[in-house]
Amino acid sequence: MADTPRRAVVLLSGGLDSTTLLAIARRDGYTINALTFRYGQRHAHEIEAAQRAAARYGVARHEIVDIDLRPFGGSALTSMDIAVPKDRPVGLTTEIPVTYVPARNTIFLSFALAFAEVTQSHDIFIGVNSLDYSGYPDCRPEYIAAFEHVANLATRAGVEGAPVRIQTPLLHLTKHGIVTLGLSLGVDYSDTLSCYDPGPNGEACGRCDACQLRLKGFADAGHRDPARYV
Amino acid sequence: MADTPRRAVVLLSGGLDSTTLLAIARRDGYTINALTFRYGQRHAHEIEAAQRAAARYGVARHEIVDIDLRPFGGSALTSMDIAVPKDRPVGLTTEIPVTYVPARNTIFLSFALAFAEVTQSHDIFIGVNSLDYSGYPDCRPEYIAAFEHVANLATRAGVEGAPVRIQTPLLHLTKHGIVTLGLSLGVDYSDTLSCYDPGPNGEACGRCDACQLRLKGFADAGHRDPARYV
Repeated sequence: MADTPRRAVVLLSGGLDSTTLLAIARRDGYTINALTFRYGQRHAHEIEAAQRAAARYGVARHEIVDIDLRPFGGSALTSMDIAVPKDRPVGLTTEIPVTYVPARNTIFLSFALAFAEVTQSHDIFIGVNSLDYSGYPDCRPEYIAAFEHVANLATRAGVEGAPVRIQTPLLHLTKHGIVTLGLSLGVDYSDTLSCYDPGPNGEACGRCDACQLRLKGFADAGHRDPARYV
Repeated sequence: MADTPRRAVVLLSGGLDSTTLLAIARRDGYTINALTFRYGQRHAHEIEAAQRAAARYGVARHEIVDIDLRPFGGSALTSMDIAVPKDRPVGLTTEIPVTYVPARNTIFLSFALAFAEVTQSHDIFIGVNSLDYSGYPDCRPEYIAAFEHVANLATRAGVEGAPVRIQTPLLHLTKHGIVTLGLSLGVDYSDTLSCYDPGPNGEACGRCDACQLRLKGFADAGHRDPARYV
């Protein structure tokens, strides 16, 4: 294994977290296969941000996979019938927000697993973090560990003794910590989109949970968020 | 819970196994939400068979989800560059066949989980069986158990204490046993398609692994397979 270049699949949405993740995987010397989803999200502008980030970080391969989650409704991110909450206090909560997309991380990780198998990647990077974890069930450490176990039972690689690892370097970081780390790695945050409900030209709303968390992260890190806001 | 109708998601391909599965879920009194995938498979005729089966069994809702697995290549079922093996001896093997689609069951179960969540179904039926299990890693009992664990960590339902069960009533049946059970439940096998490489009008080839296993199942059960062969 020492001579084999290490290959990784990076789940890349084009947002703050996953772009930081990409910079981490690059720093750690992986040959990167990036995977982005067009899943009926309101915030499809983030896909263009993902494409620019993939180009900037010289990924070996970038697949954008169309999966339509709209038939499954149920989330403010994919259903126009459910409003994205604005201006509400954010922070630690045990309530699952309406922006939760049913089984989204499980679906994303499943495709990442297929992509890992065909690219012979043994590491899958996903940008879940401790803030997401406060509200979304599929961002918890025990969930990630359980999926890693599935990954190693599901695939040729696992069966043949080359285990897959789910890498979550942001898991225990606050948004503030992520921003600080990303800035130290030279991430250009002006070209990342986190907003759940951006304007027609991809300007962030500044008021949804994602924008509020992001803005607070920059403020706590002592930096101005360079993204475009309405 | 006693007064709540039990709802299930049934993964329905339109083949012999999943149509039998549908009959079992119907026998057991579930309100059924069927889920079928158009995933770039050579054998897309099976989708029409799935639609007819869903109508015949009066499912509450039938979603056909487009997911393109072709970017991930790697399988004779989705890549025209890899031939479907014909006329080879079938039976117990530890080798993973080229018809294995990377992470396919994990992807299918992930979507089933999303569908279960939005339809408030607590049972997911998947037609894996002991023959598949001989060659496909993601058909083994320990894989199914691991995914069930993921399901219960991933979702609102799991978090809120209403566990999801992955039901695999065919797991320990031979193809012969499945056919015998299905015939006892009145399944019309003339309208199911199992072939990996069917002709232009959906006739089964009779020579791929799936056809051979199916034909042997009917022979062992003492019945003629009513499906159309070339």
